[in-house]
Amino acid sequence: MDLTEDELVAAITRLLTGEARDVVVGLGDDAAVLAAGTGQLVVTTDMLVEGVHFERSSISPRDLGAKSVTVNVSDIAAMGGSPRSALVSIALSPDVDTAWVIELYGGMRDACAEYALALVGGDTNRGDILIVAVTVIGQVAPGRAVPRSGARPGDAIAVTDSLGAAAGGLRVSQASAAVRQAALSKPWGRALLGALARPFARVGEGQTLARSGARAMIDLSDGLAKDLARVCLASGVGARVELNAVPVAQALRDGAETLDVDALGLALSGGEDYELLATLDPDDADAAARALRERFGVTLTTIGTIIEGDGLVGVDADGSEKPIEPEGWDHFA
Amino acid sequence: MDLTEDELVAAITRLLTGEARDVVVGLGDDAAVLAAGTGQLVVTTDMLVEGVHFERSSISPRDLGAKSVTVNVSDIAAMGGSPRSALVSIALSPDVDTAWVIELYGGMRDACAEYALALVGGDTNRGDILIVAVTVIGQVAPGRAVPRSGARPGDAIAVTDSLGAAAGGLRVSQASAAVRQAALSKPWGRALLGALARPFARVGEGQTLARSGARAMIDLSDGLAKDLARVCLASGVGARVELNAVPVAQALRDGAETLDVDALGLALSGGEDYELLATLDPDDADAAARALRERFGVTLTTIGTIIEGDGLVGVDADGSEKPIEPEGWDHFA
Repeated sequence: MDLTEDELVAAITRLLTGEARDVVVGLGDDAAVLAAGTGQLVVTTDMLVEGVHFERSSISPRDLGAKSVTVNVSDIAAMGGSPRSALVSIALSPDVDTAWVIELYGGMRDACAEYALALVGGDTNRGDILIVAVTVIGQVAPGRAVPRSGARPGDAIAVTDSLGAAAGGLRVSQASAAVRQAALSKPWGRALLGALARPFARVGEGQTLARSGARAMIDLSDGLAKDLARVCLASGVGARVELNAVPVAQALRDGAETLDVDALGLALSGGEDYELLATLDPDDADAAARALRERFGVTLTTIGTIIEGDGLVGVDADGSEKPIEPEGWDHFA
Repeated sequence: MDLTEDELVAAITRLLTGEARDVVVGLGDDAAVLAAGTGQLVVTTDMLVEGVHFERSSISPRDLGAKSVTVNVSDIAAMGGSPRSALVSIALSPDVDTAWVIELYGGMRDACAEYALALVGGDTNRGDILIVAVTVIGQVAPGRAVPRSGARPGDAIAVTDSLGAAAGGLRVSQASAAVRQAALSKPWGRALLGALARPFARVGEGQTLARSGARAMIDLSDGLAKDLARVCLASGVGARVELNAVPVAQALRDGAETLDVDALGLALSGGEDYELLATLDPDDADAAARALRERFGVTLTTIGTIIEGDGLVGVDADGSEKPIEPEGWDHFA
């Protein structure tokens, strides 16, 4: 780094203008002060570690900055909440230069603008590796937060949009140079990489699902299999998934042969889609699907049913059943 | 690590019982949900990086866990706020075992109990180095938060308790084996190491100072010289410090000869004391000193005066003046 800590903080503070109206004291003090509304707060934190969650060679600092905020916003969305403010702690390795850091914060500003939240505080440090830790604070109407633990037998299991694109993007980025080049020349290849680099948090969709009667909700950060297993565990239930109903991302279907991947397998186990999974009364699921289509142009697909017991069962087109292992993304694996 | 991420989260969740009453949804969901009072929120975040802020060889996991929470609570205290909840993100290097992590969270629980806050969320990751990032959310009465920017010429500059003990502890931990052994055989040596390992956040004192009319306040995390310079910069003022009024920690005075250090110099430039510095009308400073002594048995010492202009000037006992360089702790230095 060619700046002192205070100089870097000053540069970042200059970059992050446009604070929201409920910020009483923003960046640059011991702590930020926010007005507390009459609702409930929703808070979450997530850390991105170089070499574990990202490689600097395969993501731009701007995308990384945006993603570090977005993954937290997605957790707020999965509660049915509305994000309001973010705090950022970073550790910077010695080989990171100031321009890179400014781009990183530029990406955070992009995401803060996209989701209408204010970056109100943070902490900058040096370290041997690059780490970005973001906390997002949001609001939710009292009693309206949707936990993981509310799923009941008979609930429809529904997911927003489509799955597997981010996992496909990861395969593209890890493929041989020849395959990568082939992918990048096609719309599907660029779509897969874009899904990995710039995920979208479904804030409005989460609030609509909450109002539509969602009993349990989670964002698909670690893959459908693993995250649905978490809902089942928290709710004390099991799940049947109709495998041919799972909405596999079209770009992944288009690229599956070139990438030599099982598209459905990636849609089940691949992480980082940040789509929402909710369980609802089947009638509520139909109403929610209409509302999401009308308001956001987003498809809500029922992929199965919550059942008594535990564990996940996949049902093939021919009616045969097999267990689905919750083998999604484990940061310790 | 010999546990998966989910197993580790489950173990940590079991450890962290006793949630506060304003926690609607705690650990284990996408995000925590907290009831929002009628006040304002105060939020802060701080990251401790192995090799920068601590060495595993010189701090126990329990002390590290407690300290990671306490330094954030201290930032809330420096706003005059009341801490309510904490979120913790950690990166664990491969050589960290489960018992160490459980001890780390045990220390966090100690600090959460000490300051009556609930640990409501977090994120566990692996990494090449060990990092602990904590966010604390607190409350403050509307309009009552004390920023860094409120100091006015004529204000008394006052600090709680005494300074330099943590910096002395750092010198003990870095000294030769012979000096370290000599220090550990004396009360002053143990006091200095204790000040470094288990700092105390002055929450009640900060609230009392806020109610007593503090116009600017900061916690002394990076050293008196550097942190007072920050108050001056934010407020557009300068400061005169009566050097013989600076309350040097008694244990540091006792050990200065053995450690071969300038006690006053360490009290001026040494970080991690987490005492509070406030600027107040001189009459308010007298009243605040009485209140702190009566309520907490803590001394508040006036060490100088806010002046017009900028920069810090130290005044010796003989009246001679010299500039004080803000050469405290810089994480990038």
